[in-house]
Amino acid sequence: MNPPRPEITNASRPLTYEVEAINECGEALASPIAGEHPLTLYIDKREVVTLMTLGQAPEALVIGYLRNQRLVKRIEEIAAVQVDWETDSVAVTTRSGIKGLAKKMQKRTVTTGCGQGTVFGDLMAEIESIRLREDVRLEEETLYALLDAVRRHETIYKAAGAVHGCALATNEAGASRILTFVEDVGRHNAVDTIAGQMWLESIDGSDKIFYTTGRLTSEMVIKAAQMRIPFLVSRSGLTKMGHDIASRTGITMIGRAVNKHYLLYTGKHRFVKTVMHTMVA
Amino acid sequence: MNPPRPEITNASRPLTYEVEAINECGEALASPIAGEHPLTLYIDKREVVTLMTLGQAPEALVIGYLRNQRLVKRIEEIAAVQVDWETDSVAVTTRSGIKGLAKKMQKRTVTTGCGQGTVFGDLMAEIESIRLREDVRLEEETLYALLDAVRRHETIYKAAGAVHGCALATNEAGASRILTFVEDVGRHNAVDTIAGQMWLESIDGSDKIFYTTGRLTSEMVIKAAQMRIPFLVSRSGLTKMGHDIASRTGITMIGRAVNKHYLLYTGKHRFVKTVMHTMVA
Repeated sequence: MNPPRPEITNASRPLTYEVEAINECGEALASPIAGEHPLTLYIDKREVVTLMTLGQAPEALVIGYLRNQRLVKRIEEIAAVQVDWETDSVAVTTRSGIKGLAKKMQKRTVTTGCGQGTVFGDLMAEIESIRLREDVRLEEETLYALLDAVRRHETIYKAAGAVHGCALATNEAGASRILTFVEDVGRHNAVDTIAGQMWLESIDGSDKIFYTTGRLTSEMVIKAAQMRIPFLVSRSGLTKMGHDIASRTGITMIGRAVNKHYLLYTGKHRFVKTVMHTMVA
Repeated sequence: MNPPRPEITNASRPLTYEVEAINECGEALASPIAGEHPLTLYIDKREVVTLMTLGQAPEALVIGYLRNQRLVKRIEEIAAVQVDWETDSVAVTTRSGIKGLAKKMQKRTVTTGCGQGTVFGDLMAEIESIRLREDVRLEEETLYALLDAVRRHETIYKAAGAVHGCALATNEAGASRILTFVEDVGRHNAVDTIAGQMWLESIDGSDKIFYTTGRLTSEMVIKAAQMRIPFLVSRSGLTKMGHDIASRTGITMIGRAVNKHYLLYTGKHRFVKTVMHTMVA
């Protein structure tokens, strides 16, 4: 039986806006730009944080934020998520409160910088305890199928740029289907939104592929591992801490993945390369 | 007379590391990746924040962070900045303490997400009071000279990817010289480092050009305006709030600037287009 689903609004925002710009030919063009809205989160009437978001799926974003910040352990703890764009706010009601919320929020100040906002020390300790499935494999043909699906996907990025995209995809023999594709002005908002959707739809990540257009930094690897996803694929490169943490968790991490190119960095044992058989005349 | 310069270490880190990766041909390659190190900031022995950084110019990063977070108003307030990579920490000593540091740090929890970590409400109020110079112009030829200088600049990005770059450049008639080019794993670290270098070297931004490889989000525009820089140029696109705030400050903002292409979004009155004279036979 699925857990009780929280009551949620369905308040997505227009994703692109048009502004006038003048190009190098001196022409005035209507240029599409990505939306970006402040969304202030209240948990049980207490102000917690302001997220800047594209606003594609704000309810899932907030649920995923609570999940990835370790403020709630199960979706059943959340009774309602109500987004109100008139006041740029979202009210989360929990079933029985969050113990030590003030203290947890205080601790969060200890980390910042682009792509942070989580308690690094605590996360590192948690990382050590994560075990990813070892009985799953990713075939090279499946990777190529995923990259092709991503390439064909209609995106805000193609229209307006300035957003990062993430996808959760199935891992079938030689095939891959995008279950959800989320874009946001903040890379971590896109990941958090997927984490929220996975909870809302009771999706098990343990055999799935997580794709991101963004870089494989420490926090991206940590979040994928926390969602128990064994395969992490990016169009971009990676940083040293991303590599260090990927090595520690044993996640199968692939970077620079575009068309028929890729670099396999860690967790190589889960990857199955297609062996080409050449006919000898 | 220049203000007293703080005592600083000069502790930059190796910027790239090599890891083994397997490519689509099954070849094991030594692949360069960008460094990423935690750096925990102590102000007068009080732990404040942990920044994740490439470590190119950590002292300037910390000084710029203090500047852009409005923790110090003048560089003279800082007596020393000492980076110690053995403990991944940096000790800042102020001349007479920072009033209300605990309160300021607490307030910072109110904003997060990728590319945040500053007090949004306070910044917006401050933005209203900023006046950028109106007696400076940017010629199209100067923009092209800047883009050419950026293109020829040797970067970590070309070697390893996964970093954002920022540059501060001069604005001369038809020419532009890069004064400093900083890359970091976090876009805002790169901006903060430039803010720190400007203080350390007493550079006035009021006629300069700020270039970034990253997107023009709200916070990027705010930081450029706070440094009193009237010209903001990006290779990437922009978000709605970036555009809104740029319109409010009147900053001259140019996006999608690569080679001989660009889109001029705001502050158009400061931009001078080259008029082509065609000889009529």
